[in-house]
Amino acid sequence: MIVKTPDAYFFAQGTSEGYMPLNAFDGALLASGIGNTNLLRMSSIVPPGASRMKAVSIPYGAIVPVAYASITSSVKGQTISAAVAAAFPDDLTMPGLIMEYSATGPQEEVEQICRDMAVHGLLDMRNLEVGRIESTSISHQVQNVGAAFAAVVLWTLDNAGLK
Amino acid sequence: MIVKTPDAYFFAQGTSEGYMPLNAFDGALLASGIGNTNLLRMSSIVPPGASRMKAVSIPYGAIVPVAYASITSSVKGQTISAAVAAAFPDDLTMPGLIMEYSATGPQEEVEQICRDMAVHGLLDMRNLEVGRIESTSISHQVQNVGAAFAAVVLWTLDNAGLK
Amino acid sequence: MIVKTPDAYFFAQGTSEGYMPLNAFDGALLASGIGNTNLLRMSSIVPPGASRMKAVSIPYGAIVPVAYASITSSVKGQTISAAVAAAFPDDLTMPGLIMEYSATGPQEEVEQICRDMAVHGLLDMRNLEVGRIESTSISHQVQNVGAAFAAVVLWTLDNAGLK
Repeated sequence: MIVKTPDAYFFAQGTSEGYMPLNAFDGALLASGIGNTNLLRMSSIVPPGASRMKAVSIPYGAIVPVAYASITSSVKGQTISAAVAAAFPDDLTMPGLIMEYSATGPQEEVEQICRDMAVHGLLDMRNLEVGRIESTSISHQVQNVGAAFAAVVLWTLDNAGLK
Repeated sequence: MIVKTPDAYFFAQGTSEGYMPLNAFDGALLASGIGNTNLLRMSSIVPPGASRMKAVSIPYGAIVPVAYASITSSVKGQTISAAVAAAFPDDLTMPGLIMEYSATGPQEEVEQICRDMAVHGLLDMRNLEVGRIESTSISHQVQNVGAAFAAVVLWTLDNAGLK
Repeated sequence: MIVKTPDAYFFAQGTSEGYMPLNAFDGALLASGIGNTNLLRMSSIVPPGASRMKAVSIPYGAIVPVAYASITSSVKGQTISAAVAAAFPDDLTMPGLIMEYSATGPQEEVEQICRDMAVHGLLDMRNLEVGRIESTSISHQVQNVGAAFAAVVLWTLDNAGLK
């Protein structure tokens, strides 16, 4: 492979206020636990057989493949929510599908839409029975400049010292 | 290199309807043949000497460098088109330039603009004679939520089992 | 690591006119000296201990991790500016933070906001004393279709032949 294929993943989420939108985004990354790394955003497949792991501490500045939803807003009082969902097929030789969704609106609604998107992607688009769905979401009420961030971090057991 | 430099490439294109815009995009990736991978979008050079290869099956969840155009729309009846074009200089020691373009409008027009962009990039911006142009495009008439996707996938002969 | 962690960085900036917005962006990359590579955009940390290096010539088509700000405009006479700033903590075991900012408006103002963003990110978000700030910016008055681009290129001493 051009880049090593991940064999593990974990969820992360966070919110923050900040001086400018990018600062709020940066703060949300920090709150999520992966703030001091270089996020490499990608479209969004969990390789077959990848293990869900606990969140690990990633070395500062490491380049980290990630699928994420984020939203920033400067509208005071507005509720912003971000969610990611991963749907895994019954057939464990097939990959999991990650969907990302963010919107103004309540957290439960945004997470539910995101889960529906992941199910739709497996069942209707790939004709695969859904074995399980995993998801996370987070919500924030904007004070001045706010951000919400939810992610599936793709990583390796090796790098996490678990192999 | 931090990431291995690709030595081969192929074209991919697809369209789809879907439950949400990201589902339509995911469906267009599936239709294009690279839907179960992790796309890493990048700006858009074909390394000198890279070989055009047939589309290959990429392992599920592999991280794949790609230059792409995409467009989603929820306007019923609207025609959406996506194109990529690669212009290669006469001088084979120089790189090829990939351009991406998507718009509402007919496929031929969108592909022609994209090819013009690639020629402009070689001839006017780099002062290089154009040896050949390769391109692909695809079009879709939106029913509810539609997407069109066209890509140059950067890969290696090695990974494709061709070396 | 899934992708090698960079241990060096340099600044790059450029502006251009072009046939279409993507051509202007491509021209700005060329003017910045990294135009014939594959830019991999990422969120934006300088690993601890990374060295600032002179701009080096990167092989055609190599995949290059980069944090950047860019702006394109088709409004004749408009001034567009792009800036990046990296703030480094006193504590050299901690990473540097890169911020990116682009806007219509004068170069000095855009660069100052970007530097303020980087300071805010270290001091207020991470509670780290700022040791030094490095930044670059560039400005362009649009004729037809213009772009401005400023970047921190993440690289390795090894790839630069400096180790």
